[in-house]
Amino acid sequence: MMEEADMAERPVTARQEQRSGAARAAAVLEARSVAIVGASADPGKIAGRPLAYMLSRGFAGKLFPVNPVRAQVQGLKSYPSLAAIGEPVDLAIVGTPAALVEGVVQEGIAAGVRAFVVFSSGFSETGDAGAALQRRLSELARAHGVTILGPNCLGVANSATGLVASFTTALEATPIRQGGFALVSQSGALGAYWMDICLRSGLGFSKWITTGNECDMDAAAAIAYLADDAATRVIGLYLEDVRDTAAFRDALLRAAVAGKPVIAIKAGRSQAGAAAAASHTGALAGDDVLYDACLRQHGALRVDSLGQMIDAARLFLYDSVPRGNRIAVMSVSGGAGVLIADEAEPWGLQLPGLASATASALASVLPSFVKAANPLDLTGNVVQDTDSISRALQAVASDPGTDAIVLFVGLMHSIATAFTDAIAQARRDTQRPIVVIWIGAKAESVAILEQARIPVFLDIPPAVAALGAAVRLSALREAALGLPAAPAGPAPGGLPGRKPVPLAEWDSKAVLREIGVAGIPDGVLVTGPALAHLPAPLSYPVVAKIQASTLLHKSDIGGVILGIANDEQLRAALQRLWRIADDKQVDAQGILLESMQPHDHELLVGLRRDARFGPTLTLGRGGVEVELDADVASRLLPLEASHIQAMIESLRSARLLRGFRGRGEADLPALSRQIAALCRAFAQRPDLAEIEINPLAVRGGETWILDAVVSRFA
Amino acid sequence: MMEEADMAERPVTARQEQRSGAARAAAVLEARSVAIVGASADPGKIAGRPLAYMLSRGFAGKLFPVNPVRAQVQGLKSYPSLAAIGEPVDLAIVGTPAALVEGVVQEGIAAGVRAFVVFSSGFSETGDAGAALQRRLSELARAHGVTILGPNCLGVANSATGLVASFTTALEATPIRQGGFALVSQSGALGAYWMDICLRSGLGFSKWITTGNECDMDAAAAIAYLADDAATRVIGLYLEDVRDTAAFRDALLRAAVAGKPVIAIKAGRSQAGAAAAASHTGALAGDDVLYDACLRQHGALRVDSLGQMIDAARLFLYDSVPRGNRIAVMSVSGGAGVLIADEAEPWGLQLPGLASATASALASVLPSFVKAANPLDLTGNVVQDTDSISRALQAVASDPGTDAIVLFVGLMHSIATAFTDAIAQARRDTQRPIVVIWIGAKAESVAILEQARIPVFLDIPPAVAALGAAVRLSALREAALGLPAAPAGPAPGGLPGRKPVPLAEWDSKAVLREIGVAGIPDGVLVTGPALAHLPAPLSYPVVAKIQASTLLHKSDIGGVILGIANDEQLRAALQRLWRIADDKQVDAQGILLESMQPHDHELLVGLRRDARFGPTLTLGRGGVEVELDADVASRLLPLEASHIQAMIESLRSARLLRGFRGRGEADLPALSRQIAALCRAFAQRPDLAEIEINPLAVRGGETWILDAVVSRFA
Repeated sequence: MMEEADMAERPVTARQEQRSGAARAAAVLEARSVAIVGASADPGKIAGRPLAYMLSRGFAGKLFPVNPVRAQVQGLKSYPSLAAIGEPVDLAIVGTPAALVEGVVQEGIAAGVRAFVVFSSGFSETGDAGAALQRRLSELARAHGVTILGPNCLGVANSATGLVASFTTALEATPIRQGGFALVSQSGALGAYWMDICLRSGLGFSKWITTGNECDMDAAAAIAYLADDAATRVIGLYLEDVRDTAAFRDALLRAAVAGKPVIAIKAGRSQAGAAAAASHTGALAGDDVLYDACLRQHGALRVDSLGQMIDAARLFLYDSVPRGNRIAVMSVSGGAGVLIADEAEPWGLQLPGLASATASALASVLPSFVKAANPLDLTGNVVQDTDSISRALQAVASDPGTDAIVLFVGLMHSIATAFTDAIAQARRDTQRPIVVIWIGAKAESVAILEQARIPVFLDIPPAVAALGAAVRLSALREAALGLPAAPAGPAPGGLPGRKPVPLAEWDSKAVLREIGVAGIPDGVLVTGPALAHLPAPLSYPVVAKIQASTLLHKSDIGGVILGIANDEQLRAALQRLWRIADDKQVDAQGILLESMQPHDHELLVGLRRDARFGPTLTLGRGGVEVELDADVASRLLPLEASHIQAMIESLRSARLLRGFRGRGEADLPALSRQIAALCRAFAQRPDLAEIEINPLAVRGGETWILDAVVSRFA
Repeated sequence: MMEEADMAERPVTARQEQRSGAARAAAVLEARSVAIVGASADPGKIAGRPLAYMLSRGFAGKLFPVNPVRAQVQGLKSYPSLAAIGEPVDLAIVGTPAALVEGVVQEGIAAGVRAFVVFSSGFSETGDAGAALQRRLSELARAHGVTILGPNCLGVANSATGLVASFTTALEATPIRQGGFALVSQSGALGAYWMDICLRSGLGFSKWITTGNECDMDAAAAIAYLADDAATRVIGLYLEDVRDTAAFRDALLRAAVAGKPVIAIKAGRSQAGAAAAASHTGALAGDDVLYDACLRQHGALRVDSLGQMIDAARLFLYDSVPRGNRIAVMSVSGGAGVLIADEAEPWGLQLPGLASATASALASVLPSFVKAANPLDLTGNVVQDTDSISRALQAVASDPGTDAIVLFVGLMHSIATAFTDAIAQARRDTQRPIVVIWIGAKAESVAILEQARIPVFLDIPPAVAALGAAVRLSALREAALGLPAAPAGPAPGGLPGRKPVPLAEWDSKAVLREIGVAGIPDGVLVTGPALAHLPAPLSYPVVAKIQASTLLHKSDIGGVILGIANDEQLRAALQRLWRIADDKQVDAQGILLESMQPHDHELLVGLRRDARFGPTLTLGRGGVEVELDADVASRLLPLEASHIQAMIESLRSARLLRGFRGRGEADLPALSRQIAALCRAFAQRPDLAEIEINPLAVRGGETWILDAVVSRFA
């Protein structure tokens, strides 16, 4: 590792800052000499398995069992201690009781060990005492420039070198098989299941990394390493909790730049918005929504299960990702073709009509009763004729409007071999991906097709979901390449120990007036009950609103009166609002009168400093709709105007903004530039916890803040 | 069949009217003597397979090969013709060329054959000539009281008698196995795949019915038969096109009353609303939406694939359907438990906290570091202890707040036998269903658990979807029991050959005023450009609207002016509207002035006579929202007020109607009664093609028709 060589001469304290996550992960994954502390002679025991796995899988490096009570372990010379090995080793595997781990690591550092995989549990997952033990491991790693993976992890495996620093039972029954798929998992259990599926299905893997408690090396370091790893083409990710979000974002972008799709599972979707939050933005952009935003905007696709992850990954691994969203469906059953079209629609996959040249080509290949259409109903008889099928596949694959072919068949066991040969031939002869859905397929047939790099699915929905996911992931990755880099270092989650305190609308607007991005209607704060005339510079119609920092939802208590048209109505409104304030015991600072501002559209614009992710933006349809059936999008900052415009265009209600049934069209570029300016201003005001503008009134390219709540760290 | 006995003495022409669909289907499925016309001596050929299947599966009845050129076929005496058999047979299987089918059926009728299965293609699926041939078969069935299944079908199978009137290859390799699952499929191909999956998975089947072109016996007849069939517990359905919708609705209700869940696939979802339609109701309640409504309101669940159908069916077949929506999740991995909760939420499945008694019981069974919670993280170590697992399962199953247990595990191959035994024991000892998700499960382990009636899934999403679907289906079935019966006979789809013609608002309101269900604001039609004062009985504010039968979306051209507050504004508004009508070359019959009606809510209420399903109701959030992100529900009539209230409550915007952020609460029972009265009135007006009220203004229990289009058959 070049980085390590560079650092050799620098003082120890600076080392860690200089070593990239990728380099720290490489110290574990690329180890060529491995010591196993407490190695057991029994290859079935947890402490015996790593050595047994590496011996049987032909680890291409040196192995040093460390066991003071044995001369030999599993046929290898055993050493009484790490120091006794007598040469520096790349990696030590540690599974001793938690209390002994620190001592073993110290001994290893003294002996020149460069990296440690710590299986031992009993650290931060158990409480304060364990957390203190774990902090000492973090400090050792930082002080000495070594990498520590874990504790409480299931270790790593590298299929290229046969390194298996793990005791997972997923490797018990199946030989290691090299492949282009890598996994980074914060859960050992999920990691083991992934390994089991990838090995049994024949997909294989490149690297397998479980990170456990992440005292030092985290998921971000693993991703950054895999982004550079030539053996890895697709990265799977299982997340529970990301602490250094800046490093994580950086690693995801690095993978995107390297052209490596990242497919992620993150548990906790159903808890989104479950936490009570005073503001809409808080409720709408909770922890899970921001994880979602973080993955999406850095080019990673979120899926719900290992099955979905592996299905989508197969398309990438088999070079079977369509370059666009246009699929041609060929089916042995007309009904199945329509079912495929039904599944395709929600994924945004289209079934365009076939070009006339394609129709002619098909006519020369297929019987006259087969109508050239998409979906193409081949009928059961035609499918039996494998030569026709092969030529029909080639005809459709040559259609310039086809990005991929989905071929649906069922049973056909009597002609399975001829049929698989015909499809494999067509795949070789064309540049278009072919995805096969084969209901009732035999395992042998599936194996033959997958060997020919043709993904096979046994039912319609998973096949279409995999295609849809792969197309979506490619688009996300493309979009992520234009993202501005996040500021390095821990996310600025606000001022530690200080709580956000909301300001009343009047005071909030004062802050927003300073920021000066959007217009604010002319307004006057009336602090007494009586008023003879409308104060300058207001003009009718006006709106009157009770102002109190304790009252976030003024309309709930009737604290807003719209459309006041003359002095008489104004006097009545003021009287009524003061009475409501009295009745409801609201400590009102006054009544805000504002000229009503004609407009076409209302948006919610929410900016919030999240403790984990730092400044965030939530955009959506404004007004009461937000609480009914929220039509919103959230992203992490920084964002440029073009990203904000894409956010707006992703809303269901984007159609309204484009002008609809007589409403004026909003100037989306101008609107996006104003919101981008507001985002920049917010990022530069660490004293502000939150700005929620709801609604932001829009007409053409002009905007006005009709109502807003700003929260300050107090 | 009692019906058949009853009819024996009646004249032939009345027979068919009297024979129920169930009886017609029974004539095929319960056949005890079968003639195979054109039976081949080669058991591998299409014409040889039915006989070969029945011989090898031990058909419990008489078999008569009909083949004039052979003395014996597959070891049985062969007859030169149906007449030559010399005794009446229950069923004749016919696969001759289309042109010969009519003659064979006539010969069979003369020989006393009671039912026919016609495989032959070349009928209505090929064009007019084939359709004419098919009509002659329909007439033969009607005239002679025989049943004809097909043509162009794959036949039937009855696992109890070994009847296989089919040449499907799905039976080639696997023995018949009895089970409680039946299929009715309009597609032979999909039927074959279903058979293959059910036989290979060990689920088996009771009856298998493919209906093809349905010249006589249709899917409705098959469902009605299965509703009464003691061997059938769950009915699967694959639909392409239902013609006699009244019989279909009746059959679905019959299955619901018999307590038999119906799980249906209907292709064509993505084409919903694709057809251009002048009205919202037409676009919102297209063919597919009405199929959806028909299935749902008659207690059937619609799914997207065979996999989903069979997954949900397994829960019913294994008596593993939760009595409610509360699941307890027990998991070997904390992350997996949360993933299950994530999947459960969109299905409406809940994970309630465990009762304190359950927590105590768990404390005595599990180590102290396992926290009693839902999801319950058992940790990998505990799961290895099968005795603890069994006791923990029983503790959770005893919780009164648990309707079903979802147990998530992975790998564990070394202790698979002890583990499956422990779960099977717990299943026997408790009344609660247990659903197992086992990632990496071996086939043997799955087989053992399924034998113990425990459904096993290999990934999280399909397991949760099956649970959610089963709970949803039970609720739909329950709700369907209260449905009023649809009128018998073909659905009244309007006046044949006459087209619907829309009326302008003013004329539409005249029709609605006659019907007299909802209020109509005071209005005056102004036919000239000038007006000095507001005409009686109007009062300001008023709305002014251009009236023309050719102008369905008045606001698109600025043809509606709201909030006119005085005579001056009124005069200006009239001038402007006449000018717009002139500019846009609208042939206006006048300007409608109406007093504006204060209200809290706006609904869309659409009534339409569908050619297939007869009168239908579409309800939803009114105004421009309908076109943006429609929040609507559609149902077939007749409906009672309680069903209409349930429709309203199913809307996303139902929360608004219950009073929200200062808006008044709608009186839903009163509103539902008014809409029910409107539905009755519409059903009694066959001259009306459509009534679309948008919006219907609502305040409390009062309603006003603010705008409407009525279409008449002209």
